[in-house]
Amino acid sequence: MSGPVLTYRPTAIGDYAWTFGGAPPVARVVPGTVLELSTEDCFAGRVRGTGDLVSQVVEFPFVNPQTGPFYVDGAEPGDTLAVHFVSIEPSRDWAASTTVPLFGALTSTHATAGLQDALPEVVWIWQLDRQRRLCRFESRFGQYTVDLPMDPMHGTVGVAPANLEARSSLVPDAHGGNMDTPEMRAGVTCYLGVNVDGALFSLGDGHARQGEGETCGVAVECAMDTVVIVDLMKNRPCPWPRLESDTHIMSTGSARPLEDAFRIAQLDLVRWLEEDFGLPSLDAYQLVSQGVESPLANVVDPNYTSVAKFRKQWLPAAAAMDGMHARLREQASAYLATR
Amino acid sequence: MSGPVLTYRPTAIGDYAWTFGGAPPVARVVPGTVLELSTEDCFAGRVRGTGDLVSQVVEFPFVNPQTGPFYVDGAEPGDTLAVHFVSIEPSRDWAASTTVPLFGALTSTHATAGLQDALPEVVWIWQLDRQRRLCRFESRFGQYTVDLPMDPMHGTVGVAPANLEARSSLVPDAHGGNMDTPEMRAGVTCYLGVNVDGALFSLGDGHARQGEGETCGVAVECAMDTVVIVDLMKNRPCPWPRLESDTHIMSTGSARPLEDAFRIAQLDLVRWLEEDFGLPSLDAYQLVSQGVESPLANVVDPNYTSVAKFRKQWLPAAAAMDGMHARLREQASAYLATR
Amino acid sequence: MSGPVLTYRPTAIGDYAWTFGGAPPVARVVPGTVLELSTEDCFAGRVRGTGDLVSQVVEFPFVNPQTGPFYVDGAEPGDTLAVHFVSIEPSRDWAASTTVPLFGALTSTHATAGLQDALPEVVWIWQLDRQRRLCRFESRFGQYTVDLPMDPMHGTVGVAPANLEARSSLVPDAHGGNMDTPEMRAGVTCYLGVNVDGALFSLGDGHARQGEGETCGVAVECAMDTVVIVDLMKNRPCPWPRLESDTHIMSTGSARPLEDAFRIAQLDLVRWLEEDFGLPSLDAYQLVSQGVESPLANVVDPNYTSVAKFRKQWLPAAAAMDGMHARLREQASAYLATR
Amino acid sequence: MSGPVLTYRPTAIGDYAWTFGGAPPVARVVPGTVLELSTEDCFAGRVRGTGDLVSQVVEFPFVNPQTGPFYVDGAEPGDTLAVHFVSIEPSRDWAASTTVPLFGALTSTHATAGLQDALPEVVWIWQLDRQRRLCRFESRFGQYTVDLPMDPMHGTVGVAPANLEARSSLVPDAHGGNMDTPEMRAGVTCYLGVNVDGALFSLGDGHARQGEGETCGVAVECAMDTVVIVDLMKNRPCPWPRLESDTHIMSTGSARPLEDAFRIAQLDLVRWLEEDFGLPSLDAYQLVSQGVESPLANVVDPNYTSVAKFRKQWLPAAAAMDGMHARLREQASAYLATR
Repeated sequence: MSGPVLTYRPTAIGDYAWTFGGAPPVARVVPGTVLELSTEDCFAGRVRGTGDLVSQVVEFPFVNPQTGPFYVDGAEPGDTLAVHFVSIEPSRDWAASTTVPLFGALTSTHATAGLQDALPEVVWIWQLDRQRRLCRFESRFGQYTVDLPMDPMHGTVGVAPANLEARSSLVPDAHGGNMDTPEMRAGVTCYLGVNVDGALFSLGDGHARQGEGETCGVAVECAMDTVVIVDLMKNRPCPWPRLESDTHIMSTGSARPLEDAFRIAQLDLVRWLEEDFGLPSLDAYQLVSQGVESPLANVVDPNYTSVAKFRKQWLPAAAAMDGMHARLREQASAYLATR
Repeated sequence: MSGPVLTYRPTAIGDYAWTFGGAPPVARVVPGTVLELSTEDCFAGRVRGTGDLVSQVVEFPFVNPQTGPFYVDGAEPGDTLAVHFVSIEPSRDWAASTTVPLFGALTSTHATAGLQDALPEVVWIWQLDRQRRLCRFESRFGQYTVDLPMDPMHGTVGVAPANLEARSSLVPDAHGGNMDTPEMRAGVTCYLGVNVDGALFSLGDGHARQGEGETCGVAVECAMDTVVIVDLMKNRPCPWPRLESDTHIMSTGSARPLEDAFRIAQLDLVRWLEEDFGLPSLDAYQLVSQGVESPLANVVDPNYTSVAKFRKQWLPAAAAMDGMHARLREQASAYLATR
Repeated sequence: MSGPVLTYRPTAIGDYAWTFGGAPPVARVVPGTVLELSTEDCFAGRVRGTGDLVSQVVEFPFVNPQTGPFYVDGAEPGDTLAVHFVSIEPSRDWAASTTVPLFGALTSTHATAGLQDALPEVVWIWQLDRQRRLCRFESRFGQYTVDLPMDPMHGTVGVAPANLEARSSLVPDAHGGNMDTPEMRAGVTCYLGVNVDGALFSLGDGHARQGEGETCGVAVECAMDTVVIVDLMKNRPCPWPRLESDTHIMSTGSARPLEDAFRIAQLDLVRWLEEDFGLPSLDAYQLVSQGVESPLANVVDPNYTSVAKFRKQWLPAAAAMDGMHARLREQASAYLATR
Repeated sequence: MSGPVLTYRPTAIGDYAWTFGGAPPVARVVPGTVLELSTEDCFAGRVRGTGDLVSQVVEFPFVNPQTGPFYVDGAEPGDTLAVHFVSIEPSRDWAASTTVPLFGALTSTHATAGLQDALPEVVWIWQLDRQRRLCRFESRFGQYTVDLPMDPMHGTVGVAPANLEARSSLVPDAHGGNMDTPEMRAGVTCYLGVNVDGALFSLGDGHARQGEGETCGVAVECAMDTVVIVDLMKNRPCPWPRLESDTHIMSTGSARPLEDAFRIAQLDLVRWLEEDFGLPSLDAYQLVSQGVESPLANVVDPNYTSVAKFRKQWLPAAAAMDGMHARLREQASAYLATR
């Protein structure tokens, strides 16, 4: 059986949340619920053509709309929420990317402040071939066109933060949020430590694909139809967001400077190997040092995000996070079989 | 005349705010109001002796209590709030400092994550001689005792942040907050850009004195009796907190890594010289480069804070921020004369 | 034809170089020469068992020995040296890894200075099964054993630096050096900008395998038998080391903080797409943003190293670096056929 | 008595050194020698008017010429060289400052790499009134003129580095070098750990004055007539450059990111309080935290430099560095009395 199913499709701008924390829940669900959701792109759908400059069409702070939050029954601080991505599918046959003045890795920004003029503001519209699963890049200043594989993901997934805070949906931190990692794709389970009653989970910021680091600050942004299953692990803390695929476990860290994001993710992975796989601390440090993959997520958001990724086949025989991923994978199969 | 006077002295733990944004105002005041306030120390008064370890007596997230917030009539986004410090006086004849596990500049932290054991947790109680204005350091592990000058200041001063956020009172950012600069002393005016209606100003975290950078993460923490005057500049934005004394103008920046905090403060100072003193941009850059003092504020909080300080006597004849500081200085004199 | 062949196998400690720049050439070669080399491990072969602690057996600064330097005839500043890795094979059936006091990503260091005690110093000896191409991890504090794939690489590859400098072989920078990227494997061509007459190329620091970021600061270190072909591109500058495989072009950046290493590599990749593939600057920025892979190399050395990696199949039909990689690949095949 | 006196005044470009390490000594001196030196400005004297753009008149790498190096008899690794600044006087009645493309704190650089255009290249000529000890700023783009106090200093002071390295004179690190701190003024003693026999001390890069952080990357640069006394402490290591004035002891740290420079300097100060003043480690940490001044030196060079400064009067009765500063102060008085 595949659990209760809730469908939620926001339509008006007022249906979205713009923060993690501080927004009232849109629905209450029990652990094990399948959520059929739609999400708008980070521009709230306002960049539709090459003339739609972000600085003109987007009304700050109404950027990066989140679908949710959902109140998960029984979730309390000290628990961990599991969010399994059953499917992530672009809702439209196009997506948009842009430069944004004083935002991105190869420009001065409001934090890496400077006296130089901002880069020009440019919009690229990418055509999506959803059948062949391709995204088409078209040069704005030349003739070059190329198809890149579609690899849909959610840039923003999170829960309400700790410490009574409400954080903009543009920010990644220990509560998740705008981590912008291409690893957040269908088939993956995301673990998020619960900070407030009900967890208050939401997601958004779909990308048809994204490079590692999100160099210009904006991915191939598109609205998504997404199915997730939410589940709960009681009395199991999770200090930083973790991901699990069929082949890998992954820790994330979000901080500045980037080496701190790296340190957080690598330390969390070492701790995970201690907790769930019984490795002594220094042995885990050694094994991680030789086996880890460290793909960057974003180097542009208010915190940068680094991922530490380890092959399960190289670990002692044990289930990560009490086998949650395998169970959700099964539930997803059951759900997909009946759809 | 010295304006209306409002006295506000919180007594119970529930009287304080723990965030900037997200807390309801405790009072509504008109611009020009004199606020007679009392503030608790960052430990909410719970560290009273060398046996009171932070990890045992402080109940997170109820740390760094703020007195306020105050709703300032007429304050709207795009305005600037001016907060003039008339006086800052320790309420008790002792103050406390501590190490806190995984917090401070000379230890690994939750962000600069590592595998080493935390440093030992230690409390120092400093005796304050308020008459002679001295703070007495007493060695915990040896016999050395020395008196350092008292130089009372507020570590935390701010308004509600932009972008619908609520930030922990431990965080400094563009809204002010936990900047921890020794420059925030009596006689100084602090300028804060308004992000929400009413500004929602609060302050706390009194320090009898503090080194530049707040190396161990904790200053000579004490409860304060503080008098400020709040005033308002309409239609004048202030992107980052600024300070003004009789002799200096000062910009602040709060970010990580520390060079970004430096860049923000230095750029804001250059912009200030352009705006209020008519200097061309590159000339302002050159003059700042040769004349600036750059005392660090904190290198321990979630964002680090850097100050860029420039002597008014080296600037063209013009008043910073429309002469607000001089007017508030006069109002403070009038108030003090009648007290 | 496969070019002249030079065999160079240092035997005594005095045969190695310990810096890039400042060491006299061991041989003079013409462009196109095949170099059959042997390299010692980063410990100069002194860590042979779990009792051989680095702090006791290694004599600083005689660490990370380099084989070379080689003077390449005709190489002048403004040219680019191409180093094609024909083969990299472990010379012994074991390799060593260690923790080193105050070195590594999850400990305070001499730069990220702190008051905590150093982590314990531990040695792991990895058995190498060269036939099955496996490296065996054995727990020092528990019972776990696991085989990881062998993936031999050189941590250190470089030329004499610019600006009259001599840099320790532990340092990566614009001249190459200790970049510690797993991408430096057989089949890859490394491009290095020439800074002094003769280029003065050397290499060392073989790793049987390494995780991305080299978390504990030390890889699976082993002596290597390595064959490279060195060639020369006249009047073609290369500001940062680049790599090319049959499938990808890769730029590197080495700096601190890590985001600067990222920025350097990403910008160099954008410039490379402009130079060799004719993409307009902002189009290149966009395409890189959506297509780049960004595997970390090291987050432990005096500079951190980030790699920006792009699939050739997504680029306009053109040869990177004037087709040098394809030519060297052919020469390597010819050489291997006759060996 | 004031010791032997050596006068050394380089005249031709070939008389200068451009690195620390790797340059042959220009003279051999005994400890206690008074050195009467002249130094050229960082532009090697080639920027003489507002038309002399650095990118056109300076021939890299021949920038930041150093006077020296001097071989100090008896200096060996593990010793500390003491350099007392008797006097630092501008040699000319003008000085120059500039912007330099892709250099400075408020612009992208070769490390903080980006796609924006470089800032305009501008030269400011400052008139020096050596009698009244004033530097006159003249606006290049407006009419403003102002006199700032002259406060002559050396940006670059150092010895040959460890690890067989030679470092460009633009780099500050553990060997000293281009620290660019305004604290390096007459009356101060600088302590430098010796890394090679003879120490190989040199200095240059005089500034008529400089702001803290050297924001635009260039100070008020001028040729200097400088007198120093060099002395030697045997068997006393000094891991990072230290300074001592009549009132303060100061530690320095040079690294990136800036917080690491801060950490190094603060930790060295803590260690200094342990070594010379007998304070227990955590007590020293606490006392430094409340008493330190932390003026930035530079936030523009290949490493950033932070200073940690502590008042001697707040320390236990003991002499820093075995009383070297007091002895050199006396010797300087004796020398000045006879001049």
